[in-house]
Amino acid sequence: MGNIHSARVAAIRRMMAENGWDAVVISGSDPHGSEYPAPRWKQVEWVSGFTGEAGDMVITQEHAGLWTDPRYFIQASDQLSGSGIELHKTRIPGAVGIPEWVAGKADIVAVDGMSQSSVSVGSIVSALAASHADSEREYRVVDAPDFLDRVWDYRPWYPVSPVITLDEQNVGESRHRKIIRLRKFLMEKGYDAVLLSALDDIAWVLNARGGDIEYNPLVISYLLVTLEDVYWYVTKENTGELDIETADSFSELRADSVEIRNYDDLAVDVSGLEEGIRIFTDSGTLNYHTHLMLESVLGPDGVIDGISPVPLYKAVKNPVETENLREACLEDGAAVEQFLFWLESGVKAGESISEWEASEKLTWFRSRIPGYRGNSFANISAYGPSAALPHYSTPREGSSVIEPRGLYLTDSGGQYIFGTTDITRTVPMGECTPLEKEDYTLVLKGMISLAMAVFPEGTAGCQLDVLARNALWRSKRNFGHGTGHGVGFYLCVHEGPQDIRQNFNPQPLLPGMVTSDEPGIYREGMHGVRHENLLLCREAGNNEFGRWLGFETLTCCHIDTSAVITELMNADEIAWLNAYNASVYRKLSARLPDDVAAWLKEKTAAVE
Amino acid sequence: MGNIHSARVAAIRRMMAENGWDAVVISGSDPHGSEYPAPRWKQVEWVSGFTGEAGDMVITQEHAGLWTDPRYFIQASDQLSGSGIELHKTRIPGAVGIPEWVAGKADIVAVDGMSQSSVSVGSIVSALAASHADSEREYRVVDAPDFLDRVWDYRPWYPVSPVITLDEQNVGESRHRKIIRLRKFLMEKGYDAVLLSALDDIAWVLNARGGDIEYNPLVISYLLVTLEDVYWYVTKENTGELDIETADSFSELRADSVEIRNYDDLAVDVSGLEEGIRIFTDSGTLNYHTHLMLESVLGPDGVIDGISPVPLYKAVKNPVETENLREACLEDGAAVEQFLFWLESGVKAGESISEWEASEKLTWFRSRIPGYRGNSFANISAYGPSAALPHYSTPREGSSVIEPRGLYLTDSGGQYIFGTTDITRTVPMGECTPLEKEDYTLVLKGMISLAMAVFPEGTAGCQLDVLARNALWRSKRNFGHGTGHGVGFYLCVHEGPQDIRQNFNPQPLLPGMVTSDEPGIYREGMHGVRHENLLLCREAGNNEFGRWLGFETLTCCHIDTSAVITELMNADEIAWLNAYNASVYRKLSARLPDDVAAWLKEKTAAVE
Repeated sequence: MGNIHSARVAAIRRMMAENGWDAVVISGSDPHGSEYPAPRWKQVEWVSGFTGEAGDMVITQEHAGLWTDPRYFIQASDQLSGSGIELHKTRIPGAVGIPEWVAGKADIVAVDGMSQSSVSVGSIVSALAASHADSEREYRVVDAPDFLDRVWDYRPWYPVSPVITLDEQNVGESRHRKIIRLRKFLMEKGYDAVLLSALDDIAWVLNARGGDIEYNPLVISYLLVTLEDVYWYVTKENTGELDIETADSFSELRADSVEIRNYDDLAVDVSGLEEGIRIFTDSGTLNYHTHLMLESVLGPDGVIDGISPVPLYKAVKNPVETENLREACLEDGAAVEQFLFWLESGVKAGESISEWEASEKLTWFRSRIPGYRGNSFANISAYGPSAALPHYSTPREGSSVIEPRGLYLTDSGGQYIFGTTDITRTVPMGECTPLEKEDYTLVLKGMISLAMAVFPEGTAGCQLDVLARNALWRSKRNFGHGTGHGVGFYLCVHEGPQDIRQNFNPQPLLPGMVTSDEPGIYREGMHGVRHENLLLCREAGNNEFGRWLGFETLTCCHIDTSAVITELMNADEIAWLNAYNASVYRKLSARLPDDVAAWLKEKTAAVE
Repeated sequence: MGNIHSARVAAIRRMMAENGWDAVVISGSDPHGSEYPAPRWKQVEWVSGFTGEAGDMVITQEHAGLWTDPRYFIQASDQLSGSGIELHKTRIPGAVGIPEWVAGKADIVAVDGMSQSSVSVGSIVSALAASHADSEREYRVVDAPDFLDRVWDYRPWYPVSPVITLDEQNVGESRHRKIIRLRKFLMEKGYDAVLLSALDDIAWVLNARGGDIEYNPLVISYLLVTLEDVYWYVTKENTGELDIETADSFSELRADSVEIRNYDDLAVDVSGLEEGIRIFTDSGTLNYHTHLMLESVLGPDGVIDGISPVPLYKAVKNPVETENLREACLEDGAAVEQFLFWLESGVKAGESISEWEASEKLTWFRSRIPGYRGNSFANISAYGPSAALPHYSTPREGSSVIEPRGLYLTDSGGQYIFGTTDITRTVPMGECTPLEKEDYTLVLKGMISLAMAVFPEGTAGCQLDVLARNALWRSKRNFGHGTGHGVGFYLCVHEGPQDIRQNFNPQPLLPGMVTSDEPGIYREGMHGVRHENLLLCREAGNNEFGRWLGFETLTCCHIDTSAVITELMNADEIAWLNAYNASVYRKLSARLPDDVAAWLKEKTAAVE
């Protein structure tokens, strides 16, 4: 017996037998190392039924396994049930990763070189070499690009959403100047070209956006920048008729000397590259197949693997982006305020509002903002125990009804032509328990403490992280996720290279970087609290002790004070809270309907 | 023209010419990688006149240079004056280190393999190989052990201070059990022996102490531990008559199956090792010469370089050590209180007390404690602008007189048979300026904030460091040294592997570790503030969020509240301060003369 997934595993095993492969590795990513792949590359989901955001598979004739981390253990157990696929837990003591596992079970390992990075395949190659060191048996990694095509009927085709371009009033720097930056990088390093593979790198360089991946305004493509030319390999050209937006965008790009090529032409163009050329690639996002292809033409010395310089360029927002993002946060904040007013009024009036309905209403408020291009990720709309799951996915059917007591948490964001937002508010829907109030207050202290930080230049996020945790820690409470991630400008809501978390990421926080500040606490079966604002890193002056940086809070939406235990707050934290709420009212009241503005005035009254 | 140092450089150059060496490297360490070498190994000082704690030299026929870091730039400039030796600055942008510098100037480089670690010589070898990659010229590093002997008349001989042993009531673990720990390490790793070279590792394993290095209760020696035997190579055996203490100690050690050998016998014993034996060495502290010798006998595969496991064993104090250290801090605190009472009374009465006299008095109070074995480092006794130098060395002649205003800083510690202490107190001698009070208060907030920290197991010092800096940073003030260092148990006042500083040292803080908590601030020409207590890391309970750790403050000496601006303090910081001062009075009053106890009662009155 079995289900549709065991049938798919069986089909893959037949293909393996025909090809003489002992094992196949199936990755949860796309040819560009994207965090969230388009449907075409939801390979692990198609094979296994597992829908979590992180998972990879190995199939042998004897065993089919899914590897995922603690966030998804429960979900994976549920979703794998009946498939015959076994869960392998990662990030736990004694965990055996895919490279070591597969190297112990197989000699000939097939990978889909299109959807795994060369770094990731490299670790399988190394593990095989190690496990076969004392053996006569032949071993090999086989690059089998898109091998699932052979068994996956109606596999989704490449996404072909319209391409738009952004002008300098939006993004503050022309693609021309960005390309010059890349060429300076090439000249400094002595390289002839760079092949960009990360989709947000490409969108940033070209000032172009698409909708090829849900919530991420990206275009599936490669970008090849040489010292003279720019080639953009996109999936749009070979789809027949272009929509008007895309046609206009391509005209503009061509006028800026960007040659538009078909996605598949990369292989053709690479085979025509002259020997002796040295090309830089981002080994973390470039797929193994393309990397092999480059090496076969240019030789191993012709391909330099490294870390793309674009994430750092991109992370430091220029003054135009910063100013636009401030406006995005005002508009976004006004939408969230209207939502919170609607929610509180409705729940107080005894209306039955489910988490899902609330989520839809929030999206509706955002969608009315001119320049809205969608949400920046799937809304989290979680009441009571639901909020105890940090990555709760609100179900369309059967989500909880929000009651007039306890805590409701919403984590959401918008994509606007003038910026990307990400905000979490936890709001008391009525009476709260003492523990709910304590948790609410301690998390708030952490968020405020980080927001108030001033620090010398050169400081990395991990050197500040404890500020967001100290109040919780002193009460022996904690949260199991990072405190902050970088946020793109009308790009991905998660971006590097900076972050604020315990891990030793040495990237200093630089003026212009936008990072979230989102401590939380999660109590299974009870409640969850998270408060999240976006922080802009800014200059804070120079003195005899050096150059100082600090944060400007961009997010503009009041923090409910009714659940705050003021006795737990320091005077400077209360001063921050009152000043913040006052500024929210000052900035937003004119943008709000009168009844909402009046409500907000009460909500933002100072506490003592 | 020239001075005694230029004459010494000239003598070295003649030796170089005779031997065909293009350059010699002279290091500021000893055969054991000690932080503070005995006089015999103060080679850089003998050649150059520079007395700073960190400095290395290179001499060629054209150039003589001293490399040191920013702490010593001014001192080095002064002390090198007239010698013809030039200052090379390290830890500044664009600094060229010794390996790169010498590799660009020389083909044949002589090193004193006895006083440089194999890691350090290895970097010279690598730099030479790199600089000669495109050259036909022969290059070579020559191991010339003790080459300064040929030009250094009356070079100090090996120190031969008495050896004492400590019993289990003092240190809580027998040498027998410590040696079993080492043998378990060997068996787990599959090695046959470990050669310990770091002097504090050896003292800890053998429960033996000496006085071969000022302030550090160590014995110049090597310790070879095999699966069956223990050999201690000490400088005492070949000095003729042994003192009674040493003779008794040796008897006790022999009874515990430790074979006592002459320091020089190591070479003999190594040459007798069987091929095939695998010996573990600590590459950071073992000298190059001995390392070469081991390799020549055992082959490169017979010598495994790594990090000694002893520092981690040693850093985690056992319950006996902890209890003894508490007592040491009480006795030490009582001595410092008597000193502070004497100082305040004297200065108020108009007596002329210099920094030097104060330092001598402080030592006198400590010296009366039973079990006192000396100071744990040179007292810092600094008034006013002197305290603006974090590593101020109080001069015997011409030190400032302490006046009845402003801030006096003393950083000092004792070596006791039952522990090592390290304490800094900054005390107002009368009226203070508003800036002095602000600095005093902000530094105190940092010290208290770190002392109050609670944190999950696995947390490293660098993840807590900002707690000691945040109050200063928010006022755009900072200090340029680490916040905390490990402290030995009647051993070195600086020990690893943990610390509390900005650098990403991944070593978690573990229950039983003792670390200093000493933020500061330094204003050139004005004043300096530092507050320092020792913190013992302790269990703080388990709950659903995991296992929690916290600190117990060991240091017991009041903090003067007259310079505290209470408006800058949070309620919990004031509560901590009042509770701490009250506990100091409670614990110390019975140990103090009546007049000092009465004075301390006033000093420790609660503030609001």
